[in-house]
Amino acid sequence: MFDPAGIRALTFDVFGTVVDWRGSVIREGAEWARDYGVEVDWAAFADAWRMLYQPMMSKVRGGELPWTRLDDLHRMALDRILPDFGLDGLNPDAVQRINTVWHRLDPWPDAVAGLTRLKQRYVVAPLSNGHVALIVNMAKRAGLPWDVVLGAEPARAYKPDPTVYLTAADMLGLATNEILMVAAHNSDLAAARALGLHTCFVRRATEWGPGQTIDLEAEPGVDLAVETIEELADRLSC
Amino acid sequence: MFDPAGIRALTFDVFGTVVDWRGSVIREGAEWARDYGVEVDWAAFADAWRMLYQPMMSKVRGGELPWTRLDDLHRMALDRILPDFGLDGLNPDAVQRINTVWHRLDPWPDAVAGLTRLKQRYVVAPLSNGHVALIVNMAKRAGLPWDVVLGAEPARAYKPDPTVYLTAADMLGLATNEILMVAAHNSDLAAARALGLHTCFVRRATEWGPGQTIDLEAEPGVDLAVETIEELADRLSC
Repeated sequence: MFDPAGIRALTFDVFGTVVDWRGSVIREGAEWARDYGVEVDWAAFADAWRMLYQPMMSKVRGGELPWTRLDDLHRMALDRILPDFGLDGLNPDAVQRINTVWHRLDPWPDAVAGLTRLKQRYVVAPLSNGHVALIVNMAKRAGLPWDVVLGAEPARAYKPDPTVYLTAADMLGLATNEILMVAAHNSDLAAARALGLHTCFVRRATEWGPGQTIDLEAEPGVDLAVETIEELADRLSC
Repeated sequence: MFDPAGIRALTFDVFGTVVDWRGSVIREGAEWARDYGVEVDWAAFADAWRMLYQPMMSKVRGGELPWTRLDDLHRMALDRILPDFGLDGLNPDAVQRINTVWHRLDPWPDAVAGLTRLKQRYVVAPLSNGHVALIVNMAKRAGLPWDVVLGAEPARAYKPDPTVYLTAADMLGLATNEILMVAAHNSDLAAARALGLHTCFVRRATEWGPGQTIDLEAEPGVDLAVETIEELADRLSC
């Protein structure tokens, strides 16, 4: 039985767990369509872009690339998919605007309220592969009340590299078992759990749209499984 | 004439500028006196401890010590002064409690209100020689509404090493002239200004007690000079 009394900090995956990257790209895509006179299936565009996320980070994890921030990995992936969507004629300002959409993702409806409640009792921090500027810009726009920004950039490594989780614990001055890692992705939670962090699965059944087939259920071993971050606040009596 | 329109983020020195380290050590010293049955001039104790702050950081700046967090530098300095105050008989838990008083410093009366107003328009971040855990613990206790924690630890260097200011700008994705450095210490502002940051002096005329002789006035070259962080919010129309 999980006892939350020993928890001091909650660390959150961000893309998919706290913010709706797919819906946000689709929504902003409608503005790009209008401003640049292009017709694009923005859902397919969002999915194609996101499908290159892990392969791009793998280049850093495997040493093919040195430490590289996510804006630059996003841009490499974007440059690769633009021709597939007939967007290779866009001017550089337009491409730059599209590339930074990840700084402007909208939170899931429960995220701000849930985090605000949890922040009253716990340190709440992103533990994201997004870099500091991206996470700060997103938080300022969306009202996400982080106490401190942890994750890939301070560790100069990408999840699920253990360095990312261990650097966060070290910077907080906490043992790993004083931290609850919150994510919508079982692979992220498994990596955290292997290092001694407690884990909470949040179900985001439409992160990949209505046809999503992965991460619909928590895998065995998580301490908590919830539908929303507000439910997590309920469960922790915040 | 300083135009604040180009400013995106405000970075703050913390010890002395945002929090009253001397008054806080004196106040908590009264608890130690009661709990440990000791009689100490806590003002002299606070001053003696703080006087070793720059010499300890100089060991890291000069390469005599590798990167070392402030908790550990504080402890080296504390171990040195304890005998001078007849406190060398304290047990390890008591010494550890005293050493972490820097995590529990009280803000100046204007700090929380001023930062809360400034946060509405700007990224507000500590740019302190305090490490992340210390700054986070202090902020949670005092209600300091930081957006992100920057400073010595992410840069693995101590102010006024240029690396600290430049790492903060780099992590925020900003040019140095988009940042306003706020401090009660002219030396900190001079180091920031040399790198292109804008600067604001906050007068903390009793940081070192009623007999303070340094940093009573802003030196030439600062963009703004204010009495409080609330006045800074007024000046920036927040």
